[in-house]
Amino acid sequence: MTRKELINQITTKKSFLCVGLDPDMDKIPQHIKEASTDPIFDFNKQIIDATASYCVSYKPNNAFYEAYGINGLRSLEKTIHYIRSNYTDHFIIADAKRGDIGNTSTMYAQAFFKELNVDAITIAPYMGKDSVEPFLKFDDKWAIVLALTSNEGAANFQLLKSNTKELYKHVLKTCSEWGNSANMMFVVGATKAEMLKEVREIVPEHFLLVPGVGAQGGSLEEVCKYGLTKDIGLLINSSRGIIYASSGIDFAEKAAKEAKNIQQQMTIYFK
Amino acid sequence: MTRKELINQITTKKSFLCVGLDPDMDKIPQHIKEASTDPIFDFNKQIIDATASYCVSYKPNNAFYEAYGINGLRSLEKTIHYIRSNYTDHFIIADAKRGDIGNTSTMYAQAFFKELNVDAITIAPYMGKDSVEPFLKFDDKWAIVLALTSNEGAANFQLLKSNTKELYKHVLKTCSEWGNSANMMFVVGATKAEMLKEVREIVPEHFLLVPGVGAQGGSLEEVCKYGLTKDIGLLINSSRGIIYASSGIDFAEKAAKEAKNIQQQMTIYFK
Repeated sequence: MTRKELINQITTKKSFLCVGLDPDMDKIPQHIKEASTDPIFDFNKQIIDATASYCVSYKPNNAFYEAYGINGLRSLEKTIHYIRSNYTDHFIIADAKRGDIGNTSTMYAQAFFKELNVDAITIAPYMGKDSVEPFLKFDDKWAIVLALTSNEGAANFQLLKSNTKELYKHVLKTCSEWGNSANMMFVVGATKAEMLKEVREIVPEHFLLVPGVGAQGGSLEEVCKYGLTKDIGLLINSSRGIIYASSGIDFAEKAAKEAKNIQQQMTIYFK
Repeated sequence: MTRKELINQITTKKSFLCVGLDPDMDKIPQHIKEASTDPIFDFNKQIIDATASYCVSYKPNNAFYEAYGINGLRSLEKTIHYIRSNYTDHFIIADAKRGDIGNTSTMYAQAFFKELNVDAITIAPYMGKDSVEPFLKFDDKWAIVLALTSNEGAANFQLLKSNTKELYKHVLKTCSEWGNSANMMFVVGATKAEMLKEVREIVPEHFLLVPGVGAQGGSLEEVCKYGLTKDIGLLINSSRGIIYASSGIDFAEKAAKEAKNIQQQMTIYFK
């Protein structure tokens, strides 16, 4: 998907919500587990049907599929195929946090952009340029580089200062020179909303993928205050807060309600 | 596998060689591709049979399997099962470079230690403590944390200095406090052998997984000069240099010859 297509979709839907598809067998409603031979896919399918009109993006996190072996990965493939077949305009992010030496990252790029056919993949930047560049060589595909993550551990290394600048700022600055705002985004956690001001000084135009609204405690309003651009420039992710809004028979309905609630809050940012 | 079992195997075999199983369909010999319905597995199987007595560890890199989708992952499962069934003492490393927020890393730990049943997994440390700790909660399983990698991109962030110390030294020091020398190792590239001296000042006892000997140009002698401990404390990886030593009908024989050659060079480090 091109940057222009993504922005068009955001403007049309008045939404920059990304729904995280992190299926956990301990949390999938009992009635689905009992009735289905592929509860992960059936859970996702109902969540997708319920939320598609309120969001512009889906973000399956690979860990939640790999944990169930080959069967889990088949559920992931089916999920992506289902979105592609039924909701052709959604931006699909594989939250996989890959990154390896150049020839190996090339294999990962093939895995995600060719085999799995997603629009974007999240990348851990620790290994530097040759680990990121192979993901930038595909037309209309995106690398979403971890900058400042939403978890506690972010403080261990991302906030270390080098030449008066925190590591995550070096990551923003250096990585942004390898790509452009049409093939690279950055992850910046909503739990660090006030830091978005400084992030925007370094990358004023790039889209930011912002996890941490909802279960992790981040605020949509704060994120928008510091992170919004003229093109919106944000994809706000919520996973658990939407997909596990209810564990009962009404889980899809409640997920829709949560997604709609966030989308409604977003409408004020569109003139 | 326990640290003691690993050291015993190293001492018995007079080898600390790890063979990287990175199957690439462009490099697998033609006669295998023509004869087999699962060329990746059949290639690996012959490489394993040819090299098992010269090495103590196998390291499949996940990217090379994920690139072929579900079929590739099935080949990976079969490869690990084959090693477990036929060569029970080898230490199996999934070179997957994972790492995510705590609840997600827990899912990855389940994927690799339970579903795939490997002994160790490589971890990208960018996301900090809660991204690494879930991998340390399994008996006799190991987290192998990227410290100083063998590629050019290592210079982009790993060598940035904070408080006079490079980032990779912070990673060594900080991560070593989360685990111990019986459940954590570090990746230090052979292409940076002279830096092993300083690495050993920070982690004198931890095993180091050292890629970059062979195709990437690192020297076994240099690595041993600075990295060896009384327990050996090194796993030297070679991938392309061994598995693609020949692209002909004699590929397994040539792989065995390369592996044996490295193992023979290693014997001088055993009294």
